[in-house]
Amino acid sequence: MIEAGHIEALRALLGEKGLLAAAADMAAYETGARYDKGRAAFVARPASTAEVSAVVAYCVRHAIPLVPQSGNTGLVSGSTPDASGAQGVLSLDRLTGVFELDPVNRTVRAGAGLRLSDLNGRLEEHGLFFPIDLGADPRLGGMVATNTGGSRFLRYGDVRRNTLGLTVVLGDEAGTVLDLSSALRKNNTGVDWKQLFVGTSGAFGVVTECVLNLEPLPRQSATALLAPSSSEAVPALLMAMEDALGSYLSAFEGMSGNAVRAALDHVPSLRNPFGDGRVPDFVILAEVSRTNAPRAGEQPLDAVLEEVLAAIWEKDDALLADAFVGPPHETWALRHALSEGVKHRGRLIAFDLAFRRGDIMRFLDRMKAEMPERFPGVEICDFGHVGDGGVHFNLVVAKDDPRLADGAFEAALREWVISVCVEDFQGSFSAEHAIGRKNQAFYDRYTPAEIRRLSAALKAAASPGPLGAVEF
Amino acid sequence: MIEAGHIEALRALLGEKGLLAAAADMAAYETGARYDKGRAAFVARPASTAEVSAVVAYCVRHAIPLVPQSGNTGLVSGSTPDASGAQGVLSLDRLTGVFELDPVNRTVRAGAGLRLSDLNGRLEEHGLFFPIDLGADPRLGGMVATNTGGSRFLRYGDVRRNTLGLTVVLGDEAGTVLDLSSALRKNNTGVDWKQLFVGTSGAFGVVTECVLNLEPLPRQSATALLAPSSSEAVPALLMAMEDALGSYLSAFEGMSGNAVRAALDHVPSLRNPFGDGRVPDFVILAEVSRTNAPRAGEQPLDAVLEEVLAAIWEKDDALLADAFVGPPHETWALRHALSEGVKHRGRLIAFDLAFRRGDIMRFLDRMKAEMPERFPGVEICDFGHVGDGGVHFNLVVAKDDPRLADGAFEAALREWVISVCVEDFQGSFSAEHAIGRKNQAFYDRYTPAEIRRLSAALKAAASPGPLGAVEF
Repeated sequence: MIEAGHIEALRALLGEKGLLAAAADMAAYETGARYDKGRAAFVARPASTAEVSAVVAYCVRHAIPLVPQSGNTGLVSGSTPDASGAQGVLSLDRLTGVFELDPVNRTVRAGAGLRLSDLNGRLEEHGLFFPIDLGADPRLGGMVATNTGGSRFLRYGDVRRNTLGLTVVLGDEAGTVLDLSSALRKNNTGVDWKQLFVGTSGAFGVVTECVLNLEPLPRQSATALLAPSSSEAVPALLMAMEDALGSYLSAFEGMSGNAVRAALDHVPSLRNPFGDGRVPDFVILAEVSRTNAPRAGEQPLDAVLEEVLAAIWEKDDALLADAFVGPPHETWALRHALSEGVKHRGRLIAFDLAFRRGDIMRFLDRMKAEMPERFPGVEICDFGHVGDGGVHFNLVVAKDDPRLADGAFEAALREWVISVCVEDFQGSFSAEHAIGRKNQAFYDRYTPAEIRRLSAALKAAASPGPLGAVEF
Repeated sequence: MIEAGHIEALRALLGEKGLLAAAADMAAYETGARYDKGRAAFVARPASTAEVSAVVAYCVRHAIPLVPQSGNTGLVSGSTPDASGAQGVLSLDRLTGVFELDPVNRTVRAGAGLRLSDLNGRLEEHGLFFPIDLGADPRLGGMVATNTGGSRFLRYGDVRRNTLGLTVVLGDEAGTVLDLSSALRKNNTGVDWKQLFVGTSGAFGVVTECVLNLEPLPRQSATALLAPSSSEAVPALLMAMEDALGSYLSAFEGMSGNAVRAALDHVPSLRNPFGDGRVPDFVILAEVSRTNAPRAGEQPLDAVLEEVLAAIWEKDDALLADAFVGPPHETWALRHALSEGVKHRGRLIAFDLAFRRGDIMRFLDRMKAEMPERFPGVEICDFGHVGDGGVHFNLVVAKDDPRLADGAFEAALREWVISVCVEDFQGSFSAEHAIGRKNQAFYDRYTPAEIRRLSAALKAAASPGPLGAVEF
């Protein structure tokens, strides 16, 4: 239990709205988006960089651990307090006051507490957007801290690529403010320190403002659902479509037949283009889009997609079993329903993996081959981003499965999946969710000693105070 | 003077070809591409990561300073030894043995000693390239150490964006090898340590191998030379062309009339599309390109460019004074002749600056307005990358100008230009050349104390030995 004196001191720094200590007020900040429920000593809600600095300095001086929390949409327990009740939550949710658009530079300076949807809502009238396309609606600081990628990585890259500058409060006794908020695209005048705060879950400092690259909003798009003829056909199809479509190709998503069926079952209004109840083993969602103002001489994008698919079919009929060009809102509705659909099939055991693009289907085939014997009754409902190697490898177990009674079954399953991913395929056990308490053990195991030593030295130099849910 | 025993010991580690100590053999490694001439204690030429590790470990243990040298095409004295004769050069030029292409992943693992032209030559038959377009032909390790950008940054970004993995030897007594050579596009499992070695001139470690993102080779392109009506028209023109061309726009380069005239004078075969001797004050080179296999229904790119320029003209006749769509090889020949042309006009005092895109013309206008009074007789022959904010701000002084007799004139000129760039425009004094002895003083002045402290702590943790030409 934290001393009442600390609560009063923090309230004096942050004001009435800035410090929550009542159980009812804190509940939402203690509960993760999908997993876990912890207990907070307090929730600090600073409304400016200066207030973040003040609360961090106070807590470091008094050895009070702080867990930075942004939109709290993460899935690895990186933004919630543990069960001890000793950790304070440092919420970014009031850091929404800054929004400075520079249309010529195509950049915005924005408070870390802005939600992605709010940012893009305000950018829409300018024909611009922050091009990270996610199922969730996080706040910007957390997007930086997890380096989110999403469905259009293939064209736009991740948060790291689109972050030009940051303002950060270090976890030291002074609450030092690092102004790394350059809006330059080219700048090589020393160590690029902002990189340290991207993807490191807030352990090295608290992001309070970001300067972000913006992209023109797509004005035209077309989509298709494809049934590849085989696993081997998937990478060949990706290469053929990159070859034929060039910069028009903006998404190449993979969806297991199980996940598609789960979505169709869960959302009756979704249309199954493959016909009555028939769903292929693996489905590709391909999107082409362009941002330019339409020109008279331009071929419409659905015609481009039709022509390219016909040419691929003609050239090599071993690649495609089926292909349906359909309206983007319908196609994406199916894609976006996968997550909810899968969750409704039973108890979800989810992984966020990444592979070299050529390894995705090999990994999935191996899992399909070995799962029934190793873990019978576990259904593989993966989907993800074939174009960039990301796989949301979702496993579903019946809710009443007696093996779920203790944690041993799930732990064994996690061990096996992650060891195959990392050890046999040199894959990543956290593609775009970064590190939290949930995958700390895998970080500890798979991070080479030299990297751990360097990370610890850097943490000691930059943010020696107890900051973040994880240990680097 | 280094002890003969050290030379013998290093020769024993690296073999006869691996260690140069004769003055004639070392001369090329002691001389910069444009500036400075130092003296090397020796030139070590390891041929593998293990040999790099051995030579670094030996030198750190014996406190022998090492300056890593890659293609030695840099312009800031970052890769040559100083005049003391005490520093050894660690050349990457024999690290050419690794070349592993992964076409599905669109990546290559390559030795840091490969030249950009060699890499792209070997990739051409696969329809791929490493998309950094430069005037010089550096080796890969130096491209990482300076984070080069170049003329097609607008579409492809810099080396940082295209580096997926690195193998690095740290400057410690063990010559520790850091294997950061992941080929994953998504991977957020801790600090992304490879970022530390990008743009930091080899001071934190020696890059021996890189895993690089590759892009499909453009198959079609078209270019135009544009005369904007005014300085204010330049950013408006950039925005109009981004709006109209979307992802087709692959370069938007700026060239001062002075630089264009210098190129035309120097290379008589170049054609001046603006007509007999007439050159606008500022010229834009715009390129559109696409990588896709040509399709039947496609409008040719020169027609696209003509249509877009006509539409811009029609909509707002205050933007464009003149426009000529011409064959890419001719247009780029002019662009690539600028550097040599300018060098032939007199003594060159060159800067590599960057700005927010909206500030480029404001900076240039201010320089043009104030230069005649502050530094009479100095000709401004800038060119650069309007699309990403980079400006190669080149100044030319008559070779026989008596003010060049001592360094005071050039120093005062540099002071003024860089202070205006950094202090008045929040620009960068090193856009894509990183830090070397030549701009160390500006690094020292403009780097905040907290950043210097963090960088020094990191250097002490990662590479405590005397590595690199600069001090972080």
